[in-house]
Amino acid sequence: MRTLKLTISYDGTRFVGWQRQAAGASIQGLLEDALARFEGSPVSVQGAGRTDAGVHAFGQVASVRLACAHQTETLMRALNALLPEDIRVLAVEERDEHFHARFSARSKTYCYQIRNAPIASPFERAYVWHLAEPLALVAMQAAAAQLVGTHDFAAFRSAGSDVSTTVRTVTRSAWRETSGLLTYEISGDGFLRHMVRALVGTLVEIGRGWREPSEIGSLLQGGTRAAAGATAPPQGLFLARVDYD
Amino acid sequence: MRTLKLTISYDGTRFVGWQRQAAGASIQGLLEDALARFEGSPVSVQGAGRTDAGVHAFGQVASVRLACAHQTETLMRALNALLPEDIRVLAVEERDEHFHARFSARSKTYCYQIRNAPIASPFERAYVWHLAEPLALVAMQAAAAQLVGTHDFAAFRSAGSDVSTTVRTVTRSAWRETSGLLTYEISGDGFLRHMVRALVGTLVEIGRGWREPSEIGSLLQGGTRAAAGATAPPQGLFLARVDYD
Repeated sequence: MRTLKLTISYDGTRFVGWQRQAAGASIQGLLEDALARFEGSPVSVQGAGRTDAGVHAFGQVASVRLACAHQTETLMRALNALLPEDIRVLAVEERDEHFHARFSARSKTYCYQIRNAPIASPFERAYVWHLAEPLALVAMQAAAAQLVGTHDFAAFRSAGSDVSTTVRTVTRSAWRETSGLLTYEISGDGFLRHMVRALVGTLVEIGRGWREPSEIGSLLQGGTRAAAGATAPPQGLFLARVDYD
Repeated sequence: MRTLKLTISYDGTRFVGWQRQAAGASIQGLLEDALARFEGSPVSVQGAGRTDAGVHAFGQVASVRLACAHQTETLMRALNALLPEDIRVLAVEERDEHFHARFSARSKTYCYQIRNAPIASPFERAYVWHLAEPLALVAMQAAAAQLVGTHDFAAFRSAGSDVSTTVRTVTRSAWRETSGLLTYEISGDGFLRHMVRALVGTLVEIGRGWREPSEIGSLLQGGTRAAAGATAPPQGLFLARVDYD
């Protein structure tokens, strides 16, 4: 058996999310079905991040163990021929048997896009959160900077998520703005379910003047999910990159 | 009655085209239906260009005569609230009674996008023609330049189109390339049905080496539609701009 690393980009609009589910098209499911055609038997694919319905990826990473002997370049071309156009395999690389897309990941980076203008272009409607009212970017930037470090992100996890610890280390958390497009970029060693969207929702409430940037501190120290902001909608979120040692 | 000029952007993917048809959603139809709600009676909207199914617009222009007294800013906001997100009204302006989106237009500009790379991003699949094989841009540029001027474009019109003359004046015709995205821009006083897509299809056959750039000359001098190249697919085409005096 060989272990492969797949780098994948997808438009999450019409999928139920990364993870295979009982009903609806998933990226994992389509990828496993395509790989099973080469392998001649069922295949299991592990993703670095379980993106939700409507969430996109520039550079999701998946690992898979296969017996088939095709060259990586051949596999990539064949996968892209079998997969729908809203999922593209950008790279297929050999890795050693210990490689696992999720457990081996050192850092993940997500981006969240907000169109802050009276009108959102028809071409970006599925890729931004459209907010017409002015946002105070300076306050949002000050709040975002406070997230860097090792903190308990329990206030920003989705109800019903089941993890052993809610402590995560964030290495980068910043906004940039280009002609009305606000992009939030966050990197860290791991993310709780809905964490980025809960953070963005809270940062936007700060930008709207509903909250002070200083509230981030108390939310990171024993705050509850109810005390934090609303979850931002999925279509602005992109899994941008996964880094490995 | 007042005359209004509307500037409109749309993602043409799911529409039967600009023009209202017996079945399917059209941009003209949805716009007329939305305007009729303010007017309280049926409304007729004239578009500057009749874009086909799957063709997009950054700046389509439409004219309409209305009796209602709403301010232009109010009308724009209300239209955008009524229309689906893949159609956005970017501007509403008062014009004199002689203004007609099509007959008053001095010049129109179309863009056509080609992704010339092994893989097209999932996010641009509905907005480019994806061609993996290398294209000779220098030859395509030389051929494009020969289209500038007043010529008989009969070889580049769709079969079945019914116009009094097939002579048109092209004022700009050029390719530009940015990291594998080829964009063709053409401006002129008018365009025959499928003309831009037939031109792009022919220019691509030149880029593939199937034809010489010099063939453009003979196609413009009594060439038939069958002698020119295939019609390029609709999703790469955008009505970019309409200019008035």
